[in-house]
Amino acid sequence: MDWDVFLTPYKQAVDELKIKLRGYREQYEMASQHSPIEFVTGRVKPIPSILDKARRKSIPLNQLDTQMQDLAGVRVMCQFVDDIKIVINLIKSRTDFDIVEVRDYIADKKDSGYRSYHLVVSYPVMTIAGEQRILVEIQIRTLAMNFWATIEHSLNYKYEGQIPKDVKDRLQRAAEAAFRLDEEMSQIRGEIQEAQQHFILKKLDQ
Amino acid sequence: MDWDVFLTPYKQAVDELKIKLRGYREQYEMASQHSPIEFVTGRVKPIPSILDKARRKSIPLNQLDTQMQDLAGVRVMCQFVDDIKIVINLIKSRTDFDIVEVRDYIADKKDSGYRSYHLVVSYPVMTIAGEQRILVEIQIRTLAMNFWATIEHSLNYKYEGQIPKDVKDRLQRAAEAAFRLDEEMSQIRGEIQEAQQHFILKKLDQ
Amino acid sequence: MDWDVFLTPYKQAVDELKIKLRGYREQYEMASQHSPIEFVTGRVKPIPSILDKARRKSIPLNQLDTQMQDLAGVRVMCQFVDDIKIVINLIKSRTDFDIVEVRDYIADKKDSGYRSYHLVVSYPVMTIAGEQRILVEIQIRTLAMNFWATIEHSLNYKYEGQIPKDVKDRLQRAAEAAFRLDEEMSQIRGEIQEAQQHFILKKLDQ
Amino acid sequence: MDWDVFLTPYKQAVDELKIKLRGYREQYEMASQHSPIEFVTGRVKPIPSILDKARRKSIPLNQLDTQMQDLAGVRVMCQFVDDIKIVINLIKSRTDFDIVEVRDYIADKKDSGYRSYHLVVSYPVMTIAGEQRILVEIQIRTLAMNFWATIEHSLNYKYEGQIPKDVKDRLQRAAEAAFRLDEEMSQIRGEIQEAQQHFILKKLDQ
Repeated sequence: MDWDVFLTPYKQAVDELKIKLRGYREQYEMASQHSPIEFVTGRVKPIPSILDKARRKSIPLNQLDTQMQDLAGVRVMCQFVDDIKIVINLIKSRTDFDIVEVRDYIADKKDSGYRSYHLVVSYPVMTIAGEQRILVEIQIRTLAMNFWATIEHSLNYKYEGQIPKDVKDRLQRAAEAAFRLDEEMSQIRGEIQEAQQHFILKKLDQ
Repeated sequence: MDWDVFLTPYKQAVDELKIKLRGYREQYEMASQHSPIEFVTGRVKPIPSILDKARRKSIPLNQLDTQMQDLAGVRVMCQFVDDIKIVINLIKSRTDFDIVEVRDYIADKKDSGYRSYHLVVSYPVMTIAGEQRILVEIQIRTLAMNFWATIEHSLNYKYEGQIPKDVKDRLQRAAEAAFRLDEEMSQIRGEIQEAQQHFILKKLDQ
Repeated sequence: MDWDVFLTPYKQAVDELKIKLRGYREQYEMASQHSPIEFVTGRVKPIPSILDKARRKSIPLNQLDTQMQDLAGVRVMCQFVDDIKIVINLIKSRTDFDIVEVRDYIADKKDSGYRSYHLVVSYPVMTIAGEQRILVEIQIRTLAMNFWATIEHSLNYKYEGQIPKDVKDRLQRAAEAAFRLDEEMSQIRGEIQEAQQHFILKKLDQ
Repeated sequence: MDWDVFLTPYKQAVDELKIKLRGYREQYEMASQHSPIEFVTGRVKPIPSILDKARRKSIPLNQLDTQMQDLAGVRVMCQFVDDIKIVINLIKSRTDFDIVEVRDYIADKKDSGYRSYHLVVSYPVMTIAGEQRILVEIQIRTLAMNFWATIEHSLNYKYEGQIPKDVKDRLQRAAEAAFRLDEEMSQIRGEIQEAQQHFILKKLDQ
């Protein structure tokens, strides 16, 4: 298997989607509106992680393109929980790819404490051999969700999925602290908007 | 007229097309083939140049989006003249935009000596207000064509379109030197391919 | 005053420092070590903000280069509070610029709740007219400190420095939630390191 | 030998120098002057090429850092031959690295027809283990010199250094065409400058 050749269109899809989603930010700024997108990252899954996951989930290597949905991954970070819905709507309104699957781990968070909104899309890459459809997983999260997830990921990696009870408890407390921060932030966002509303009404009165 | 708001989707189209066309290069390299694309540049026309051209061509500012086809411009540079055809075919086979117009100044070079292949495409940009179609001019040229064109452009700018006879003659000689270089390069390209062909046939003999 | 000409070396300094500080991240990854740097951003202060601050602080425009220390700003984001010290030491050990001033708002947080570590450095930019020394403010913070600061900044902007009491209280609670998250994270970091230490000792035993 | 670890500071040096040299271009544009730099590229020598050259030149792998001067390479492309001198002076006036060696293949072109100006510099990279001096080769050429060199490089690679007589002759003719183009361009550059001079004198008369 020639990994470089196989993964090149995945890298291309990630590069294109990063540019496309980052573009919204500038548009909101130009319109002097709060951008629901704070920043966007992307990556192609490293080959050792692909092999590892394929073994764990019994996916034959010649079915990776259809059975492993996160070979290409793009992540959108938001400041506020409510921004996530806006980003989902922006993505759903696009006509340059199809949405294949949706997993809402915010309404329905994982037992570990993991929260995030996942979309799998079928994205057309124009290769030198013609159009090729690529699965890309788009994750949408707040900054607080994101950095808790980053920690959990490294602990899982470190303990090979068997995180000891006491560390798990700490992780749980950190998840609560992250959740708490998102809550506090949400209420401030509401107040900013109320303040703005008030301001606009007063102006209309004059 | 809010130029920043008006030009943002043009900038977005240029950024996306640069990533898309640059992607071919890596694909050819991965496949160990000569890339017909040497490099790709892009720009949104600067506002003073837009105003200048609008005045010269009597284009009302509220019709810029349909009447000025090069507000967004992308340029593909090739090593060899024969690479241009390959790039045109790659672009024509894409399904993510429509080709609106074609101008072949290579088969039919301008009196000034200008040679280049132009395509105008209608490219869909996903804005925060929905899909918007943008005209983009894609120019395809060899490196020799390109740097002659760069010189001509600055001389035209300098002399405001009235290049003196003696400078025009020099420019003509430079155009011939650039054309000559392309010719010499083409013949070398042929010989490289013949050499390869010969090499493959010899291998098949064994 | 020609702002473009004046600000060009500031933009250059920011671009160079972003590349320089981002480079550490890759070096830690290559050495399979935790990177104390999560990501690096940078910006040149927008002209309206410069004018606004100059008025507020009574800085004459011809003394901006020496009196306004954050015309060029670079921000380093860390996952853990303890990473900040490591980044400070990396910066202090560099020989390509001089440190002019240090402000530690982590040991000594602002009344508002603001926490961050600031360094002002004198950075040499090579211009077409020779070497020019530029002041650059480098801010080092955790992700939690950063996004609290981002919110406070927009509220200050919105209320023009006069944040109402109830919003201020909410902001205070968000600052506590952010601080709490950093604390929880710190303890997990300790446990990861203890776990690693334990692992290494066990290996040495064999 | 861990190539990733060994080559990381070389990659860092290339990234920093690209940003530094590209910065001049913007400065010239801001000052409304012709930029002597058209564009800048850079690369770390691929590992197979390093091994190949080390074998050919009998360089032990543990002396690569001092004996192979082009592990890190940066290339500056100019529009006009006379721009090269200006770029050399910009580089010589910098205080952030030392020049170790100079090879002028323009005054003294190679038998093959190769023309280019080479500087080897000792560039300080700040690593996580402290300052490390890296050799970097900076090549300065016109666009015409560059693309002839690109062709020669691929032919040499194809024929493993044994280019047949007839291909060599063609390559020679292409070198002459490239040289001819540079000559024509130089004369136009002179005329542009004379025209400008004339224009300025006329203005002073009024």
